[in-house]
Amino acid sequence: MKRIALFPGSFDPFTKGHEDIVLRGTQIFDEIIIAIGYNSQKKRHFDIDYMVAKIKECFSGKDNIIVDKYTELTAIYANRNGANYLLRGLRNTTDFEYENSIAMVNKDLYNGLETVFLITSPKFAFISSTIIREVHNYGGDVSKYIPYTL
Amino acid sequence: MKRIALFPGSFDPFTKGHEDIVLRGTQIFDEIIIAIGYNSQKKRHFDIDYMVAKIKECFSGKDNIIVDKYTELTAIYANRNGANYLLRGLRNTTDFEYENSIAMVNKDLYNGLETVFLITSPKFAFISSTIIREVHNYGGDVSKYIPYTL
Amino acid sequence: MKRIALFPGSFDPFTKGHEDIVLRGTQIFDEIIIAIGYNSQKKRHFDIDYMVAKIKECFSGKDNIIVDKYTELTAIYANRNGANYLLRGLRNTTDFEYENSIAMVNKDLYNGLETVFLITSPKFAFISSTIIREVHNYGGDVSKYIPYTL
Amino acid sequence: MKRIALFPGSFDPFTKGHEDIVLRGTQIFDEIIIAIGYNSQKKRHFDIDYMVAKIKECFSGKDNIIVDKYTELTAIYANRNGANYLLRGLRNTTDFEYENSIAMVNKDLYNGLETVFLITSPKFAFISSTIIREVHNYGGDVSKYIPYTL
Amino acid sequence: MKRIALFPGSFDPFTKGHEDIVLRGTQIFDEIIIAIGYNSQKKRHFDIDYMVAKIKECFSGKDNIIVDKYTELTAIYANRNGANYLLRGLRNTTDFEYENSIAMVNKDLYNGLETVFLITSPKFAFISSTIIREVHNYGGDVSKYIPYTL
Amino acid sequence: MKRIALFPGSFDPFTKGHEDIVLRGTQIFDEIIIAIGYNSQKKRHFDIDYMVAKIKECFSGKDNIIVDKYTELTAIYANRNGANYLLRGLRNTTDFEYENSIAMVNKDLYNGLETVFLITSPKFAFISSTIIREVHNYGGDVSKYIPYTL
Repeated sequence: MKRIALFPGSFDPFTKGHEDIVLRGTQIFDEIIIAIGYNSQKKRHFDIDYMVAKIKECFSGKDNIIVDKYTELTAIYANRNGANYLLRGLRNTTDFEYENSIAMVNKDLYNGLETVFLITSPKFAFISSTIIREVHNYGGDVSKYIPYTL
Repeated sequence: MKRIALFPGSFDPFTKGHEDIVLRGTQIFDEIIIAIGYNSQKKRHFDIDYMVAKIKECFSGKDNIIVDKYTELTAIYANRNGANYLLRGLRNTTDFEYENSIAMVNKDLYNGLETVFLITSPKFAFISSTIIREVHNYGGDVSKYIPYTL
Repeated sequence: MKRIALFPGSFDPFTKGHEDIVLRGTQIFDEIIIAIGYNSQKKRHFDIDYMVAKIKECFSGKDNIIVDKYTELTAIYANRNGANYLLRGLRNTTDFEYENSIAMVNKDLYNGLETVFLITSPKFAFISSTIIREVHNYGGDVSKYIPYTL
Repeated sequence: MKRIALFPGSFDPFTKGHEDIVLRGTQIFDEIIIAIGYNSQKKRHFDIDYMVAKIKECFSGKDNIIVDKYTELTAIYANRNGANYLLRGLRNTTDFEYENSIAMVNKDLYNGLETVFLITSPKFAFISSTIIREVHNYGGDVSKYIPYTL
Repeated sequence: MKRIALFPGSFDPFTKGHEDIVLRGTQIFDEIIIAIGYNSQKKRHFDIDYMVAKIKECFSGKDNIIVDKYTELTAIYANRNGANYLLRGLRNTTDFEYENSIAMVNKDLYNGLETVFLITSPKFAFISSTIIREVHNYGGDVSKYIPYTL
Repeated sequence: MKRIALFPGSFDPFTKGHEDIVLRGTQIFDEIIIAIGYNSQKKRHFDIDYMVAKIKECFSGKDNIIVDKYTELTAIYANRNGANYLLRGLRNTTDFEYENSIAMVNKDLYNGLETVFLITSPKFAFISSTIIREVHNYGGDVSKYIPYTL
């Protein structure tokens, strides 16, 4: 059976930290679906279709990495797309407490859907989408933190 | 003297984790007042009066558990209702840091009002109102996490 | 029914932080038993009988505070002495993670024995028996941190 | 070379905890610039010019403490004003995780701009601008937590 | 290529929390090697060969779970046995900080050896070998926490 | 007045993470004293005089960095050597909780002795003396983690 993992997130924007997790994830899983969850009430800084295109650009030529967007519960989307695992990165203890809750609910409500964690590589662990948005907002150069050109 | 504890929160919604703390709290205190703090600027997912009714339903027949709502400072409300203690649950370290600050201010400003903590039982520790709202929002089944029928 | 809480620890030495928790605990419980758990394999810095005497000195005249030592499982000792609660202080997140495990085991194995937590007052939260031993070891003055004269 | 540190923040409001860090900072640096970062999208509770005035009032007579506001990236502002260091207080582990990320980005993007941390004194560590705003909002007395009269 | 993961530990003793991680790990990996690392200087509570036998008993009949012991660097042992991954459980933030360091060193020194993390199920998250040893030491019943009969 | 900071530790061994803090510290202070605290009861992995020599080797030619050893309370040593500040690195939240306590005691007992913190650079944050000793003990190559040749 093919091992398919979903790497869900808002990716506003997708960072080198996210890329790190995806690339390392491909050593564990046969296929990774990167999917941007969105809901119409939450305003994004980077347009979702633009971001989907940018992420696709990063992994062009890699057949085992798929990029998508969705607007339902992550677990439902995973199930509908044959993903048996969620893949998530952990940067620090704040991430840990948050991801712990999410993972347990996903497992509990959705038939044992398993979340697999990698710890973000040190050189990317301080990068967050929030900080990138802030720097970008003020016209700062964020190119060091994203694996594509804006 | 009767030991009365206030269990304050936004309870949007009240969860089985909250119920766990209240029931264990009744082994320590003579009476527990569950009170939903609200302010008009913060939009709720579940209507406050509906939630008050649902919580009452959970504890119907228990005379030592009172359910209410309030719109003033927690410490003031506690004082006005004869509660000498605040009761709070701790799920994880993020909760701890947050509750620590609140407890110190309540004690410092309001004449030694004491906050008593119980650690949430493991099986409920990953449940948060935030996650329940999210799951509910997308039409997921949250009945496992709440001690009443929506 | 009398509410009796056990405040267990190695108290090597008993600090003003411990005293803070005990005094605040007497506002919640009818009686508090302070008991030094010891095992012969673990070498103490301060002699256990000396420390029992010193703690007794702190609370002399208070009938609702009892000081003792024990050499069995905390939960067994609590049960044998009619204590329905354990009382513990939390200083920081490291304490929280540790106490969380202990509390769950005590509850799980010993018929629901409940641990009640207070957060140590800020001015005492940085005091630990370990640091006091270290300072004392090198001849430093630790009198500010202990509620008795050595 | 004069050692100038920038102490940036939203200071909504400036607290005794902030004052503690600034005063201790003057023992390390020759000059400290306290600067309120703001952006027009984020609504403040306390007016920015009122707060600048109040902070100036706190440190009147101290030539080595300057109070200002800015609306650009913190690192750019620091550079433009000759500040070679950022000064920040740490209250707890949640602060630590957040400040860690910010500090690394500031260092990484802006030519090694160094962030120097002091741990907030225990008696102020539970004070946060958020809690003060909440208490103030409900008409509670916050004068104990701020080093000036509102 | 077969995906083989090493689940290393001192397992003094092996707990239901460890079992939880191994069983969930078999949904991700083709084979799991459970290996007890030991060094002669560190005294164990439970004899290593006894523990190896007990763990084997737990997983008897499962061909994809191998039980072993080793006395070299974990990464060297992994390499020598064809394990491309380390599997580790995370219970809380204290675990996280510790495992983070170990994982980075293993990756950094040993050619990208990847550590994959699962978060321990809530009902087992409070169980630690340390607490079990302590309870067992005093004659308490630990059978609820271990997946075999002592 | 010359700003002298003491960088105390057991440095068993001194790592690139320590070097990182010292070098960044020289941008803040005029002089840094690196001093190995030792007590005869605690067995070291690396001989103290050997380590003093190795650290000296790292900073040879830098007049503003002094290397020493001491066997008294850190604060007393600082005072005796004219150091008005302690310099410490923070790698993670576990460090934070520990350093917080130590810093408060040093400040409280020793006339306001101030501890200044830098957050360890990401690429060194996972390095600990404990892990290096462990790797070294088993014959692993630790040269990547120390700024000198063993």
